[in-house]
Amino acid sequence: MDAVIIYSGGLDSTVLLADIMRRMDKVTALNFNYGSKHNLRERASARTICEKLGVDFVEIELPFINQFFKSDLLQSGGNIPEGRYEAKSMKSTVVPFRNGIMISIAAGYAESIGAQFVLLASHKGDASQYPDCREEFTKTINKAVQLGTYSNVKIESPFNSLLKHEIVKIGLDINAPMELSWSCYKGKERPCLKCGTCYERTEAFYLNDVKDSSLTNEEWFEALKVIGKDKDG
Amino acid sequence: MDAVIIYSGGLDSTVLLADIMRRMDKVTALNFNYGSKHNLRERASARTICEKLGVDFVEIELPFINQFFKSDLLQSGGNIPEGRYEAKSMKSTVVPFRNGIMISIAAGYAESIGAQFVLLASHKGDASQYPDCREEFTKTINKAVQLGTYSNVKIESPFNSLLKHEIVKIGLDINAPMELSWSCYKGKERPCLKCGTCYERTEAFYLNDVKDSSLTNEEWFEALKVIGKDKDG
Repeated sequence: MDAVIIYSGGLDSTVLLADIMRRMDKVTALNFNYGSKHNLRERASARTICEKLGVDFVEIELPFINQFFKSDLLQSGGNIPEGRYEAKSMKSTVVPFRNGIMISIAAGYAESIGAQFVLLASHKGDASQYPDCREEFTKTINKAVQLGTYSNVKIESPFNSLLKHEIVKIGLDINAPMELSWSCYKGKERPCLKCGTCYERTEAFYLNDVKDSSLTNEEWFEALKVIGKDKDG
Repeated sequence: MDAVIIYSGGLDSTVLLADIMRRMDKVTALNFNYGSKHNLRERASARTICEKLGVDFVEIELPFINQFFKSDLLQSGGNIPEGRYEAKSMKSTVVPFRNGIMISIAAGYAESIGAQFVLLASHKGDASQYPDCREEFTKTINKAVQLGTYSNVKIESPFNSLLKHEIVKIGLDINAPMELSWSCYKGKERPCLKCGTCYERTEAFYLNDVKDSSLTNEEWFEALKVIGKDKDG
């Protein structure tokens, strides 16, 4: 069976990519640039990981999102909020129907190349802020895609009931190249360690009792300070 | 109530545009260029009609479809088939999940500008060839979009149970500017009169006992010959 994965180069989709490579015949990674502040930094990580794993890497540009949509995640939006990943601070980073758009494009692409599956790494931690990351949404758009394609392409989101630290646990178990993945919403040269997604990533490694292998020792200590765990707190 | 319409500049969406302008406070037309042979010719018609009706006109480019997808409708595809609009000849013109992609983008755009509705002009005649034009598909993706957006954007496809000649009847009743609309898949300066969509358009006007107002008298006579109705046949 062949699969297309919506692949950002972030932590969750990197673990999913490593996971599905063990059970699919061929995997193609679709990477979207919708004009977020971190898309291009994330894309560099995605490309490196795909080269390392020998996965076809396809880059899709969606400039109209930055041009016409409203979100602080976008280059055209305001500042990225800092601190814990909570509904009230993170709502400004919602890109309206972003997952719906990426799933639809991936479905059309999958049908074009004869792949039966589209995979994405939505997880439970995203569900409170992002309505198009919820399990019920993924199930319903899966039905729509099956109805709307000749070959009944199937959408799968196997991490939808997992929290981020459970995804890190899988990544550790299967030796996914998490050290090359990128999460920070600010998209600078190094992670800011303070935005919602850095915060969440640090917590996820901390809960597994391991250092985030993408960080230097100094950065890891700084990251633990941000989440208030620098003194075994 | 505000609406976004997926607006190609074709016959069906032109009638729908004229129709919804009578019941919505504000309408924004989204026009997609996905690299078909006729997109740009159709866009010129769409722009002219929106200027005439005073509708905001937003152009969205989807170059990745022509680049990566397979369909004879696309510039990168083979020849457009001629003759009656039938499954066996027209299947080659399917652009995989095209409506799903346009609906998803329109849903995100609608949420960004605070519009409550996305309208599209899928009709019964398209349903046999294009799975993402069927009523069941539209209903299911409507559910997905409502789940996947904060403001529960609603997808409506009011022509889904109508045949093309019934849409022309509505257009005649409400005086929609059908004379400015464009259908031909070949996208040359004038309609070819022979491709599936020209054939279907001619039949739709013929069944209403009126001339297609977008054609010259000579073209109309030629079009009737193509469908075998030049001698009251």
